[in-house]
Amino acid sequence: MPYILVTNDDGVEAPGLLSLKKALEAIGEVAVFAPDHNWSAAGHPKTMHKPLRVEEVRLADGTLAYASNGAPSDCVALAILGLLPRKPDLVVSGINLGGNMGHDITYSGTVAAAIEAVISGIPAIAVSIDTFSSDADYSVAAQFAARLARYVLEKGLPPYTLLNVNVPALPADEIKGVRLTRLGRRVYKDVLIRRKDPRGKDYYWLGGGPPKDVIEEGTDVGAVAQGYISVTPLHLDMTDYKLLEQLKSWEIFKSDSP
Amino acid sequence: MPYILVTNDDGVEAPGLLSLKKALEAIGEVAVFAPDHNWSAAGHPKTMHKPLRVEEVRLADGTLAYASNGAPSDCVALAILGLLPRKPDLVVSGINLGGNMGHDITYSGTVAAAIEAVISGIPAIAVSIDTFSSDADYSVAAQFAARLARYVLEKGLPPYTLLNVNVPALPADEIKGVRLTRLGRRVYKDVLIRRKDPRGKDYYWLGGGPPKDVIEEGTDVGAVAQGYISVTPLHLDMTDYKLLEQLKSWEIFKSDSP
Repeated sequence: MPYILVTNDDGVEAPGLLSLKKALEAIGEVAVFAPDHNWSAAGHPKTMHKPLRVEEVRLADGTLAYASNGAPSDCVALAILGLLPRKPDLVVSGINLGGNMGHDITYSGTVAAAIEAVISGIPAIAVSIDTFSSDADYSVAAQFAARLARYVLEKGLPPYTLLNVNVPALPADEIKGVRLTRLGRRVYKDVLIRRKDPRGKDYYWLGGGPPKDVIEEGTDVGAVAQGYISVTPLHLDMTDYKLLEQLKSWEIFKSDSP
Repeated sequence: MPYILVTNDDGVEAPGLLSLKKALEAIGEVAVFAPDHNWSAAGHPKTMHKPLRVEEVRLADGTLAYASNGAPSDCVALAILGLLPRKPDLVVSGINLGGNMGHDITYSGTVAAAIEAVISGIPAIAVSIDTFSSDADYSVAAQFAARLARYVLEKGLPPYTLLNVNVPALPADEIKGVRLTRLGRRVYKDVLIRRKDPRGKDYYWLGGGPPKDVIEEGTDVGAVAQGYISVTPLHLDMTDYKLLEQLKSWEIFKSDSP
């Protein structure tokens, strides 16, 4: 029976985590190891400057789970390095409240947890639903994650790759299907908000509304906007091979003197 | 005269930052905006859950600089969104104490700062030296960064790309030259260290020694090990296009039912 680690970045008490765990129990033995608080937009840290705590907690359905004060990526590292009885066959991260599409993935703790697994040689899936509504229905996303997990366990994924899944916030009968996609573009109009504290000193918030999605055919952003579940295969090699060739024409790369 | 933002992840007091700033003054007007403490292995967070503070500080040479309690990527966001008098033409992040090669880049605050700039449409360079020695000599790396910055300012870089530079910790006359590279592999043997606090409760460190570098021709890791300065062009599109084609054969992606 496959052994599946479930984690997230919304924290161990998030309903998306429980929903994912329940769906995955149909296909394997599931361990839950997640942050003890919300780490949204945490990126991919490796916590080395402070000790990490691990607590045993109970999920809403009574399941035993582990919670840590570390980031999602730390939870995966702790789990894999010895806190779980054996190495998982698959890591599934989510279900995140809020899509992780386009450049979101560079900030996403959900995706970072999957990347951490992949670096350790374990296949991984990140799952998000494209809404911030607190009464979101995770069931479509959870069922799809379990279906996809079964394929990944059977067929495997190439080294250093993962699957990033985004599910529209629609009832099951309004989902149009599944699309394999590339990363698209969401344009954030971040703004700087300046305030004064009670002592008259400035402080700042990084603010801004929801992103403007660029609806392009073949992208995650485009597919979700049209009502499809988006699955984007990602790899960790960010080398720009085309630019690498182009740069060979720059004089600085022609001579051997630094 | 070009306007250049310098930031880092080792903190505003790090010698590598000052060294970089001084070298870049030969080619432009330089603003310094960096974290007020060390953020190594911080990944790419966007701090939205707490307010950010900004202080004016003096570098060791008397230069006025800005320091923030945010991560390197937050510093770039704050600078670009309005704390600098105008939008910079280039962002240079570093000089980081410790190489950022292979999968290091997914954890690297130095690279994350450059990524933040690129997402905002500003070309960026990340610079690291491959040593953890506190008496490291930054001069070779700083001079090279300034030479490279001049090229980037003149020729530009394609959207959503950046240059990741790693410099061997060698005296100038032992550097063999410059190599354009792809990302290589460093294998970390992380270990879990379990300790007991004074109250008998377990806590954990993510530990492990330096990585085992996989010396491969054409990679950043290989070039630096052989005494070359490595320049790796990176892009933000982590889509695995080859895997995308392969996955089309999976049954789950053939039907349209979720």
